[in-house]
Amino acid sequence: MIKKRLFTPGPTPIPEQVMLKMAVPIIHHRSPEFREIFKRVNQNLKYLFQTNQPVLTLTCSGTGGMESTFVNLFSPGDTIISVNGGKFGERWVELPKVFGLNVIEIKNKWGTAPTENEILEALKNNPNAKAVYLTHSETSTGTATDIKLLSKIIRENSDALICVDGITAIGAHELRFDEWGIDACVTGSQKGLMIPPGLAFVCLSERAIEKIEKSQMPKFYFDLKKALKSFYDDDTPFTPAITLIIGVDEALQIIKNEGIENIWHQHKRKAMAIRAGVQALGLKLFTDKPSFAVTPVWLPQEIDWKKFNSALKNIYGITIAGGQEEFTGKIFRISHLGYYDEFDMVTMIAALEMCLHEVGYKFESGIGVKAVMNYFQNNK
Amino acid sequence: MIKKRLFTPGPTPIPEQVMLKMAVPIIHHRSPEFREIFKRVNQNLKYLFQTNQPVLTLTCSGTGGMESTFVNLFSPGDTIISVNGGKFGERWVELPKVFGLNVIEIKNKWGTAPTENEILEALKNNPNAKAVYLTHSETSTGTATDIKLLSKIIRENSDALICVDGITAIGAHELRFDEWGIDACVTGSQKGLMIPPGLAFVCLSERAIEKIEKSQMPKFYFDLKKALKSFYDDDTPFTPAITLIIGVDEALQIIKNEGIENIWHQHKRKAMAIRAGVQALGLKLFTDKPSFAVTPVWLPQEIDWKKFNSALKNIYGITIAGGQEEFTGKIFRISHLGYYDEFDMVTMIAALEMCLHEVGYKFESGIGVKAVMNYFQNNK
Repeated sequence: MIKKRLFTPGPTPIPEQVMLKMAVPIIHHRSPEFREIFKRVNQNLKYLFQTNQPVLTLTCSGTGGMESTFVNLFSPGDTIISVNGGKFGERWVELPKVFGLNVIEIKNKWGTAPTENEILEALKNNPNAKAVYLTHSETSTGTATDIKLLSKIIRENSDALICVDGITAIGAHELRFDEWGIDACVTGSQKGLMIPPGLAFVCLSERAIEKIEKSQMPKFYFDLKKALKSFYDDDTPFTPAITLIIGVDEALQIIKNEGIENIWHQHKRKAMAIRAGVQALGLKLFTDKPSFAVTPVWLPQEIDWKKFNSALKNIYGITIAGGQEEFTGKIFRISHLGYYDEFDMVTMIAALEMCLHEVGYKFESGIGVKAVMNYFQNNK
Repeated sequence: MIKKRLFTPGPTPIPEQVMLKMAVPIIHHRSPEFREIFKRVNQNLKYLFQTNQPVLTLTCSGTGGMESTFVNLFSPGDTIISVNGGKFGERWVELPKVFGLNVIEIKNKWGTAPTENEILEALKNNPNAKAVYLTHSETSTGTATDIKLLSKIIRENSDALICVDGITAIGAHELRFDEWGIDACVTGSQKGLMIPPGLAFVCLSERAIEKIEKSQMPKFYFDLKKALKSFYDDDTPFTPAITLIIGVDEALQIIKNEGIENIWHQHKRKAMAIRAGVQALGLKLFTDKPSFAVTPVWLPQEIDWKKFNSALKNIYGITIAGGQEEFTGKIFRISHLGYYDEFDMVTMIAALEMCLHEVGYKFESGIGVKAVMNYFQNNK
């Protein structure tokens, strides 16, 4: 009877009431009952993104949601600037190239975020750039980008659209779509929204909606003009993932009751507590700008990743994320995105301590857990 | 306490054990636990399609699955033949045009299926046609196409790929992908598979897989080369709809235990019983070639659709499908696709009788239900 606990940055744990709500007998998507639910979802998604603009719901993964922005806002041959600081940034360089966009890549070392100067220089060198793509929280490196600051810089210096991969950030990091002047922002269901994967959400500014009219890129399933038209009737062009939308409805009501600012604050507290815990154990953080969604930690060189991960999973029932690409076996990533509380963070660090002890790492027993508790006690 | 019953051809009712299975705590998609499930799903999908070829699982609706065939098997400028006999056939003409394909349309009157001669003539007039698209069960008209016969004709007379929209047919109609020489066949999760919408399944022949290599169409999320590569590792290129795949696993095990041939047989029985029931009531079938998934029926002219449907729904808790486009208000469609048994068919016709009585239609009370029961009793 090993109790299983998931500490991965997507899928994230699903609140019990949300799971059960998705298990009620299915309703038809073209029914007044569903429309009422979807209307509430559409309203509450605006609250989540802090916007008065439409937030479109697509049945696909986050990557599908991101693809929809590339194929709807531009035409082949258009130039865009895309920041690549990890596995997902890499994808936002590769994907638009497939569709014939001219992609100017800002390549950041894994674990670093783009600077004001890098963005300004790319804009100066590419005055024809139609957009800048930024990743709010790069999941592969647990690194956060200052979207508020960079949006301001981009708005002040160009007409380029500001497009944000908010997939692991929305619901963890402060994001104010309207106030910050963002043009397109995407998230997925299995992240801060605490439901299973299968839905992507795309928020679009007035400027972005205007661009859709002019886009010469072929698309059908990801046609956002169709999606917008249906959106205003609280409908979707194609059969949506009904049960997941019912789950989102429940999750958004939880978020609304908690208050989005409180949710951002609690994510910061969980992230800071985890950082305090791992650092107290003598472990080092992978990045200087850690995300509030996921904390990446260097694995001490003497520890074998497979042995460590296997102990964590098989003895203690804890699933964390490993490093990706060149950092496979070198770092591990702890998620605090979504449905976690203070005691989940204590549990995570306690399991880490027990597992480190298991593989022979030397440290003062209890010191990590103490640091987590102290952080929470001293930072309300 | 009105008990709600869904008789729509997608979403279809979900078995209780499948709903509950999808509500267990979520697991990560890159874990041995998930891989084991997905491996079984991949095996059982082959059984469902009666094939030894790969069946790819995509997180999207059926339309997304169909789009993946158009953008992976062809290049812009290629000619394809597409049968349009209803709302979905219409989509399989419109969609490929968006992607620059030259679409030769075989337009069938709603409620009719394409004939051998129509297909032969189109092939003769377009010897360069790279594919013929057929809709096995056209949901909007409840009309079935003889895929076995037409596949044979196409194979004998051309090298064109045979691509089948099996969205509402798979699991209701006999389909033998390998034996019949089909090249691409798509289904969705919310149909014969009895789970919520959000997944599409794409089965590909060797010939089709070869075409993928040569396709010059841009794609990323729907890139089947990527999906095939992952498939062989029982993996997916992007985060899949995990809970829905867990549901499919459960549903496919039910199907396997029942036996696919028995499931086809039972769908035929349910369809024939419903037809006997509505005809006994003096109602007329909309099509000469009714599908085993959904039965379309002319609404007697003197009956107002809105009043009729509202009584059915609000008094008796029954949701059926109405007519689409020019047949809105003129026909109604009863689904028998998926998780229904004999008594569900009795219930459906009983509710129809009570509702027809309500709106003043004259008939001998009980005669429809009697016909349904007689059919079942006399046809095991």
